[in-house]
Amino acid sequence: MGGDIGPSVVVPAALKALHIYQDLHLILAGDEASIRQCLEKQGTKHASRLTIRHTTQKVDMDELPPHALRNKKDSSMRVAINLVKSGEADACVSAGNTGALMAVARFVLKMLPGIDRPAIITALPSIEGHTHVLDLGANVDVDAGHLLQFGLMGSVLATAVDDNARPRVGLLNIGEEEIKGNERVKEAAHLLANSPLNYIGFVEGDDIYKGGADVVVCDGFVGNVMLKSTEGAATMIAHFLKEGFTSGIYGRIAGLMALPVLSRIRSKIDPRRYNGASLLGLQGIVIKSHGAADVLAFRNAIKIARLQAQQKVPQHISRQLEELLSKRQTV
Amino acid sequence: MGGDIGPSVVVPAALKALHIYQDLHLILAGDEASIRQCLEKQGTKHASRLTIRHTTQKVDMDELPPHALRNKKDSSMRVAINLVKSGEADACVSAGNTGALMAVARFVLKMLPGIDRPAIITALPSIEGHTHVLDLGANVDVDAGHLLQFGLMGSVLATAVDDNARPRVGLLNIGEEEIKGNERVKEAAHLLANSPLNYIGFVEGDDIYKGGADVVVCDGFVGNVMLKSTEGAATMIAHFLKEGFTSGIYGRIAGLMALPVLSRIRSKIDPRRYNGASLLGLQGIVIKSHGAADVLAFRNAIKIARLQAQQKVPQHISRQLEELLSKRQTV
Repeated sequence: MGGDIGPSVVVPAALKALHIYQDLHLILAGDEASIRQCLEKQGTKHASRLTIRHTTQKVDMDELPPHALRNKKDSSMRVAINLVKSGEADACVSAGNTGALMAVARFVLKMLPGIDRPAIITALPSIEGHTHVLDLGANVDVDAGHLLQFGLMGSVLATAVDDNARPRVGLLNIGEEEIKGNERVKEAAHLLANSPLNYIGFVEGDDIYKGGADVVVCDGFVGNVMLKSTEGAATMIAHFLKEGFTSGIYGRIAGLMALPVLSRIRSKIDPRRYNGASLLGLQGIVIKSHGAADVLAFRNAIKIARLQAQQKVPQHISRQLEELLSKRQTV
Repeated sequence: MGGDIGPSVVVPAALKALHIYQDLHLILAGDEASIRQCLEKQGTKHASRLTIRHTTQKVDMDELPPHALRNKKDSSMRVAINLVKSGEADACVSAGNTGALMAVARFVLKMLPGIDRPAIITALPSIEGHTHVLDLGANVDVDAGHLLQFGLMGSVLATAVDDNARPRVGLLNIGEEEIKGNERVKEAAHLLANSPLNYIGFVEGDDIYKGGADVVVCDGFVGNVMLKSTEGAATMIAHFLKEGFTSGIYGRIAGLMALPVLSRIRSKIDPRRYNGASLLGLQGIVIKSHGAADVLAFRNAIKIARLQAQQKVPQHISRQLEELLSKRQTV
């Protein structure tokens, strides 16, 4: 429990999750005294399904990944990932430094055979429901083969968590016509079209939020800019709404009237409801929570970890990858 | 006047623009009979400042640029750009096929010395006002030197149209720390930091809409995805607002009350108010309107063309580029 948030968020989120999911057991890695202090405040109703693993170090948010890897062997992050490696835990949830989490997870858990690097995937809201998008920033320099791997991993995840047998996989491009885009995207389109995936072709940025694809594949640079720019646009719209509904008597009254409607919309597109990005491609489940998550957001990350553990997502990715590779060898 | 929109949009937009800008003269290139028919419907109040140039061809929206370049020498697009080349017009505004427009403009007008390819720039709304972003899709494979050129062109444009002597130029990246991003972005950051521009460092996707930079530089693939995904997110939010404010008696009443506030916000972020992207780097002014523009949107594109002609944007870019190159040679 390093990162921007500590036991004051993680402990109540853990207790809420234990309350909702009666089959859930949680191990909290971090400073035992601080955790116990928070637990006492919250009550110990579900404490029988909660274990504390005391750790003495934490990874700082601006710490370089290689430094964390070498020097933070008793950090909450490292210990939590070790628990997944040893089989004591089925999944790890962390709100810590993303780069360090990726480096430590990759070092301890290892990649699945056939996958080169972890990819970050999350579900984003759409008019139709939601769209899984990857990679969101783990891989800034990728080739067409990596994009194929992303498509495969995203498809398996969508099948597992949405109970969707044939997720529609789209490749993010700047036009839907075949002539558009750079060479890498064109090559990846060829690979995806010849894979067993339900590949639906190129999609554009707006399709992520309009719906139409279940999984959208892109490189980590593009995915990260896409995610942050839409967050920025949503923040701007929220700013103007707040400004409009709090200025002047008329604005305030209209704002009061509009509140129930606006709250419903907010709950639909609330980033907290979508908190919990998966580091896919590892031999184990690692969920990254936003560094500034609150109780609701962190509880959602725990929910995603539980679901992926139940669905055994890494094993499914591994099996589909084997099938894909064996098909290729027989062609 | 090819494209998705024709004289029925362009003619009333032209007349509105002539009404607002008493110094404006417009030459409408297209089928004379259709233009005259629309003019008759609209009245001929400002017709003394309007000339028709009859053309017999049009470039289709899905036509490949080389085909348009070779075979459409009497298209409205080609003729309009020829008018800029000959000096009869100070700027060209087109709602036609973007790829063909770029190819024809580049062929006829030529690039400014030192600029390799045109870049597409537009102003996007932000909490602070607006942010100019380039490239939005003209260049999918760029190197660090191109990103420097984009920064320079964007800075000159912001100075010219916003009367901003030292526009803040940011480079789009996936983190603000120097270690983030791919090699190309890191190299471009070095070039920009050593240029005479007011370079403020890396910015992230959300900064475009939050404000903080006047010009944001990125490659055309990233820029296009950014633009379309935020359009998609805004469309999704608008969809949920409409749904919320039209369902049930309470929703409808709240919606009626909220209408003035929502209209004000819409007018702030209305894409039509931001219609008119510039093809920068050419020896002449070419403004690309959205293919599905309405009268208000197309009029805005004409407004932008007029302003850039008044400010002599290409000449300014050319001069700043010469200064930049001479400084480099003396170093």
